[in-house]
Amino acid sequence: MVAKTRGMKIVHSIEVLQHMLNRDERIGRTVGFVPTMGFLHEGHLALVEQARTQNDLVVMSIFVNPAQFGPGEDFEAYPRDIERDSRLAAEAGVDVLFMPTPEEMYPQDGGIRILPGPQATALCGASRPGHFDGVLKVILKLFNIVDPDRAYFGMKDAQQLAIIETFVRDYNLRTAIVRVPTVREPDGLAKSSRNVNLSEKEREEAPVIQQALQKGAALFHTGASAEQVEKEVAQYITEHSSGRIDYVSLLAYPELTTSSETSREWILACAVKFEKTRLIDNSILSVFSKEFPTQ
Amino acid sequence: MVAKTRGMKIVHSIEVLQHMLNRDERIGRTVGFVPTMGFLHEGHLALVEQARTQNDLVVMSIFVNPAQFGPGEDFEAYPRDIERDSRLAAEAGVDVLFMPTPEEMYPQDGGIRILPGPQATALCGASRPGHFDGVLKVILKLFNIVDPDRAYFGMKDAQQLAIIETFVRDYNLRTAIVRVPTVREPDGLAKSSRNVNLSEKEREEAPVIQQALQKGAALFHTGASAEQVEKEVAQYITEHSSGRIDYVSLLAYPELTTSSETSREWILACAVKFEKTRLIDNSILSVFSKEFPTQ
Repeated sequence: MVAKTRGMKIVHSIEVLQHMLNRDERIGRTVGFVPTMGFLHEGHLALVEQARTQNDLVVMSIFVNPAQFGPGEDFEAYPRDIERDSRLAAEAGVDVLFMPTPEEMYPQDGGIRILPGPQATALCGASRPGHFDGVLKVILKLFNIVDPDRAYFGMKDAQQLAIIETFVRDYNLRTAIVRVPTVREPDGLAKSSRNVNLSEKEREEAPVIQQALQKGAALFHTGASAEQVEKEVAQYITEHSSGRIDYVSLLAYPELTTSSETSREWILACAVKFEKTRLIDNSILSVFSKEFPTQ
Repeated sequence: MVAKTRGMKIVHSIEVLQHMLNRDERIGRTVGFVPTMGFLHEGHLALVEQARTQNDLVVMSIFVNPAQFGPGEDFEAYPRDIERDSRLAAEAGVDVLFMPTPEEMYPQDGGIRILPGPQATALCGASRPGHFDGVLKVILKLFNIVDPDRAYFGMKDAQQLAIIETFVRDYNLRTAIVRVPTVREPDGLAKSSRNVNLSEKEREEAPVIQQALQKGAALFHTGASAEQVEKEVAQYITEHSSGRIDYVSLLAYPELTTSSETSREWILACAVKFEKTRLIDNSILSVFSKEFPTQ
């Protein structure tokens, strides 16, 4: 049931994993958890790296969660490479790699769902109904299975992070959420498992997304309105790439509302559709020396 | 922050409770949890008694959960008697009594909800939309706060129990659910905090509910159809009391569907409205020597 790769244990069974991470056997040892959908890149490894510095044990899960893919989305096309992932995880210092099958995770379904609030209707949620239901479902299951002290999420999926942070806060989950900055290619493109689905030409164009967000951020700090900032970003991407804009939004973070009197942080986020895949990226903007933007 | 009654600690703060029940400090000690809405009666004390035999520590919560009362329901009228409850809990052997305020439990609300599946549309769920959302919300919060090894629920709220068991199964909650039989008055009336809202005359009539369920159970075992059984129970209650039938249902348990090929257990349940309150009761019927009833 348990395989080893360079000292890393590979586990497929929930029961075996829970036995391994049994509360009484980890007394005084902390567990850091890195949930992933696999096809690991440096972004995931940055999560592991941070988890290693803060915990005694690092558990990674690789599970392409069918519950968070909608009809017509890329569940089948989502890239998978278990052998490479296992090697990378072991090299990065993962202690336990949990790779359940969909049947192991969802053997039965009594129909209980976790529905996110208004946060889920913004950004990617608008075009992916049910996506964050699936995310919350698998996160609650994984947290209950692993019982981690800390869990690590990249800022790239900023909406997911905002919703999970709200879930942890409102439902008293016992796991601390750690935000880890987006890791980028040398040309600025955010690392993503989906980048392999770009054509050569699209890959060349893709750094335009990050450039556009930087231009938008600069405009934001001059006092421009949200509408002006969003328009600038969309226009720059459309003019410099073949990508089609799914959305560009400037919202209070982590509330994901268009206006917030309490928020000190804003997110400038976008999603861009290419031929075979859809890329997202964002920039978190702190409000120091400027007025809140007005719509 | 922590008061003591006969060695029982009374805690109002989530933070204090979590510190007290900290994982590292309870190594090798098991925690049994009895969640209640207070106004304790022997039904609750039977839960404590069973929890004591199976755990090192017993935690009880008293929290009249606003999230599970609908508009026009009896949240304000729900009986409360904290002093008496504290005394009874201490005498029964509760180690820690957790009594948070609604503000402590729900300081913020990001709008994330837990929606039950088809189980919630049967029985009481039909006339109490949103009720089990509120139950699942508070149960997940309380389980995360207390982190119990076992939690104890009475069979009287059989629908609640069925839904919570499904939640634990489908979401890998780390708490084992223990079913405890309904405790009854000498005349057969199921113990309930709501019984105090009955008039003297209604209190005299109320044992009719249990008598009717027993008659229905006997009819079930003769091979009668679900329809016949339900009709018999409703008729007996209407003829022998001033109570109005809310529902009488014979369903597979714990699926709460009208037919199930796998179920070995059935529930015969009813809700009856009196002037100021609504009572529920049920009987679990095992399928041994008879065919599955047909509708």
